[in-house]
Amino acid sequence: MTGVVPPLVTPLTPSYDVDTGSLARLIQYQLTGGVNGVFVLGTSGEGTFLTDEQRQVVLETVVGEVSGQVPVLAGVIDTSTARVGAHVSAALKAGVDGLVATAPFYAATHPAEIERHFTRLAALAGETPLYAYDIPVRVGTKLPTALVISLAKAGVIAGVKDSSGQEPSLRRLVMERREAGLNEFAIMTGSEVAVDSALAFGVDGVVPGLGNVDPAGYVRLFGASSAEAWDEQERLIRLFDIVDVADRSRMGASSAALGAFKAALYLLGVIDCPITAYPSVPLDEEEIAALRPLLDEAGLH
Amino acid sequence: MTGVVPPLVTPLTPSYDVDTGSLARLIQYQLTGGVNGVFVLGTSGEGTFLTDEQRQVVLETVVGEVSGQVPVLAGVIDTSTARVGAHVSAALKAGVDGLVATAPFYAATHPAEIERHFTRLAALAGETPLYAYDIPVRVGTKLPTALVISLAKAGVIAGVKDSSGQEPSLRRLVMERREAGLNEFAIMTGSEVAVDSALAFGVDGVVPGLGNVDPAGYVRLFGASSAEAWDEQERLIRLFDIVDVADRSRMGASSAALGAFKAALYLLGVIDCPITAYPSVPLDEEEIAALRPLLDEAGLH
Amino acid sequence: MTGVVPPLVTPLTPSYDVDTGSLARLIQYQLTGGVNGVFVLGTSGEGTFLTDEQRQVVLETVVGEVSGQVPVLAGVIDTSTARVGAHVSAALKAGVDGLVATAPFYAATHPAEIERHFTRLAALAGETPLYAYDIPVRVGTKLPTALVISLAKAGVIAGVKDSSGQEPSLRRLVMERREAGLNEFAIMTGSEVAVDSALAFGVDGVVPGLGNVDPAGYVRLFGASSAEAWDEQERLIRLFDIVDVADRSRMGASSAALGAFKAALYLLGVIDCPITAYPSVPLDEEEIAALRPLLDEAGLH
Amino acid sequence: MTGVVPPLVTPLTPSYDVDTGSLARLIQYQLTGGVNGVFVLGTSGEGTFLTDEQRQVVLETVVGEVSGQVPVLAGVIDTSTARVGAHVSAALKAGVDGLVATAPFYAATHPAEIERHFTRLAALAGETPLYAYDIPVRVGTKLPTALVISLAKAGVIAGVKDSSGQEPSLRRLVMERREAGLNEFAIMTGSEVAVDSALAFGVDGVVPGLGNVDPAGYVRLFGASSAEAWDEQERLIRLFDIVDVADRSRMGASSAALGAFKAALYLLGVIDCPITAYPSVPLDEEEIAALRPLLDEAGLH
Repeated sequence: MTGVVPPLVTPLTPSYDVDTGSLARLIQYQLTGGVNGVFVLGTSGEGTFLTDEQRQVVLETVVGEVSGQVPVLAGVIDTSTARVGAHVSAALKAGVDGLVATAPFYAATHPAEIERHFTRLAALAGETPLYAYDIPVRVGTKLPTALVISLAKAGVIAGVKDSSGQEPSLRRLVMERREAGLNEFAIMTGSEVAVDSALAFGVDGVVPGLGNVDPAGYVRLFGASSAEAWDEQERLIRLFDIVDVADRSRMGASSAALGAFKAALYLLGVIDCPITAYPSVPLDEEEIAALRPLLDEAGLH
Repeated sequence: MTGVVPPLVTPLTPSYDVDTGSLARLIQYQLTGGVNGVFVLGTSGEGTFLTDEQRQVVLETVVGEVSGQVPVLAGVIDTSTARVGAHVSAALKAGVDGLVATAPFYAATHPAEIERHFTRLAALAGETPLYAYDIPVRVGTKLPTALVISLAKAGVIAGVKDSSGQEPSLRRLVMERREAGLNEFAIMTGSEVAVDSALAFGVDGVVPGLGNVDPAGYVRLFGASSAEAWDEQERLIRLFDIVDVADRSRMGASSAALGAFKAALYLLGVIDCPITAYPSVPLDEEEIAALRPLLDEAGLH
Repeated sequence: MTGVVPPLVTPLTPSYDVDTGSLARLIQYQLTGGVNGVFVLGTSGEGTFLTDEQRQVVLETVVGEVSGQVPVLAGVIDTSTARVGAHVSAALKAGVDGLVATAPFYAATHPAEIERHFTRLAALAGETPLYAYDIPVRVGTKLPTALVISLAKAGVIAGVKDSSGQEPSLRRLVMERREAGLNEFAIMTGSEVAVDSALAFGVDGVVPGLGNVDPAGYVRLFGASSAEAWDEQERLIRLFDIVDVADRSRMGASSAALGAFKAALYLLGVIDCPITAYPSVPLDEEEIAALRPLLDEAGLH
Repeated sequence: MTGVVPPLVTPLTPSYDVDTGSLARLIQYQLTGGVNGVFVLGTSGEGTFLTDEQRQVVLETVVGEVSGQVPVLAGVIDTSTARVGAHVSAALKAGVDGLVATAPFYAATHPAEIERHFTRLAALAGETPLYAYDIPVRVGTKLPTALVISLAKAGVIAGVKDSSGQEPSLRRLVMERREAGLNEFAIMTGSEVAVDSALAFGVDGVVPGLGNVDPAGYVRLFGASSAEAWDEQERLIRLFDIVDVADRSRMGASSAALGAFKAALYLLGVIDCPITAYPSVPLDEEEIAALRPLLDEAGLH
């Protein structure tokens, strides 16, 4: 795993079914943008909102549409090992190239229990690489650096997606990877706004939700010299303001951010309907329209 | 819903299957203790750890064993409306008497979204009463009092189980229920240790995890005069020290508490194996033995 | 320390000087209400907002006006032992009957350091009793029960004011006091709204901010049978709604609550000006007027 | 304010007096290291632990010893405007070149109140520049970017020291400064470990606690090309491990970090005694000795 691997949203129809036509267009939009991989059914993909049947539709559509051009990673996020295990089996059957799991959640969990969790999942995954997804704001636990390095040494996980927003901890992980000689272990940042810094200190790539909207921008940022990267990053920071357009007094933070990504893709003609999964409150027409100038300013039409 | 309704643990075999024999004995232990209902597949029931198949085994075993003597409530806790909906259907098919759902979790959620969530679930539940389960430490959101009252007035929810540990807010809810004339709306506390106070200010009953171990104690507390209730409550506070016996430096808080309930039931001869669901770290023999004097002191043999 | 000991507000003039005339009337209002003591320069007294000179004016005014009729406790709240020590000396010189200190704050502090803090303060206090003030929402640290009991046994502190809002922990402290035979050790709750429960499980009294406004109400609650106490507590819970009248989008929570206490005393004719200490934003005229019906409903004129 | 401005520790004697001889040597160590300014009586300077008399000794010693070679900034950190105001007067009298204040703390505070606070302090400071110190972990409030920009535009504050650890917010502030044309407004990071990144995206300098121990290292980092800066930063990240040497089960996080800075300066022969202010628990001899290899590895002897 390296480069730009956006966590794709899941386009839905107005009646909350998976919109496979829009999903196929989103895949083509990403491939045209030059991404190095795609990650489906993650937090941006509303994986925890979908039924098992809907998840299966997403996996089959994406694997078919990508057709081997880049790796497809599948989120297998759920509350416990047994429930994640069921998602692992389904994803393997669909033919994905990698699996992405968080620590267990809802129940309070200890690092020793997280270790048991990933170890069993890796056994289920077999040859397919397993990636750890560190997102404490959703899961309630930060993956300790020592645990990540230990799981890497044991060959349990092939990499980590860090969405903790804790840059010093991420940098420390990069340093400890080097000291441990874990050259094959992938470290990706989930940040939209600190990517140039993270690439400068040694991460391998980025999994940005905003990459749904502007994959080519993150691809340019990834390949750029440091001065160019700085410019590109500042442009993307401004574009990221789209997540603040919706009225937070009437919807949750997840709905506002994902709704903005979907509404932008809708305005760009990539997907047919900007709705987010039930029970999320959708953006209204005025909010959707308010995104347009931010897209224009970022050069997206 | 009124009186004592313990949230039952789910006994497991050493190979992590549901132990239906032990579960049947636990039901008899509860009925002998005089409980007014049982709540399965809640937080204490490790509902989020079990597969759909295991959940079905639990529901069928409990409904069959209880056989109409007291109401059976089923937890339908999951990340989103669609996923909870699948659990609702399964629980209705198994013939439960009530459903208990939390707000959505993992994704950050707004009260307006929680309202949509419960409204759709109530439509699925039909005639079967739906109860809201307020457990911010697990879900990340406190159910606002105004939302609970509004859902009660609309007939969406039949009651609430409050495990927030915020007594002033619980009392306020009791006052607002009275002012709104919602006499049929049930308010239960999930506390083990502030039950006498909560009953004194007007809650209808208690859903105590510790009731797994000492159902008769909570039944006595519920029926007691205030001086007797105070004595009984202090005895149960001391018994609750069993959750602090396991070593928190090697397991999570959930594992330590549920492990203690199961180990106590094991020592009392009710269940065959004290194991908690994978990936929870189990109590070791020394920790299990250390529970014995606390049970003895509480008069449980 | 026992009974009702309100933490008095500090009346100020429009130019932010201590208003000694209003303070004297507040004392008389409290004594007429039947309080068992007064606590000045606490959180409600805006002690951390006042200069050393202003603190001295408050102490001298109160000691003079109370004139030995009830004990006067003085808050000596500051960031570190040395700075609290200076307040201790000043308070002793003014002739107070007891001293109330929090743990150190601003710097992160360990229980072993809190123990050193109180031990040195007790040495400075000499014969004057020292009380620990447990207010984690302001200080950032909860006083561990084991530390409180250990300081009590060592004779370092004469009691505790618990404003943690954690009722189970407070009850545990009451139980451990009894087991340790610390009959002289005073345990007071800082809650306005859970006083009947706390008295029922064994605390000695209450230090309610709302007691500024309705001292007689808390005195009745303290002396009442349990059914009467319940009624009185519910009336006071409703009166406590005054702290939610001010617009939290334009002022802090402290300003809203203290501003409401002061505005109520202003409307009742006890103090001349409802202003809170700089830089707090004051309640506006409309907000002050909105308190009147809540006072009327509570029977205060 | 630009470049490297370490927040100096306050050396103490074994009897907790300010050790002016050690303080003078620390100043010379800093000037020899090439720092662009010094900041005294901040968090690292244990300003909230010292009496007014001790603060005065520090200010006079430092102003005298620095003797105009670089600017001297003084922390004026206290709970409220009035109390900070007294520190401002004292610092101005001692002849400092700048003042550094946090938002009020202990009481919960609203941005409108923080604005009043800084506005009044600026009036007291007159011609001497006032800097805002953003340290939410100590104060409990993050300074909103919009407030900082607004205070900058109004000429109330001359700059900000950001110790929030929130890099995206800091970068946003840099971008908004540029858009507002506030070219004179200084933005400094308080981070020890993300300095190269912060300099790359546009901050003006750094106020690192670790700069007490290795001022020359931060001076080199500040002046370096980006590849050299990366190397220097990684060396300093490793050196920062000294804050994890002390046993956190027996002392607070502040004591462990400041104790390590002081112990390192003691081992380097700069100060005579590594003690931290009362009631902080000091490092023991074994912990102090354990710092030596980390200093050696960093090339400090």
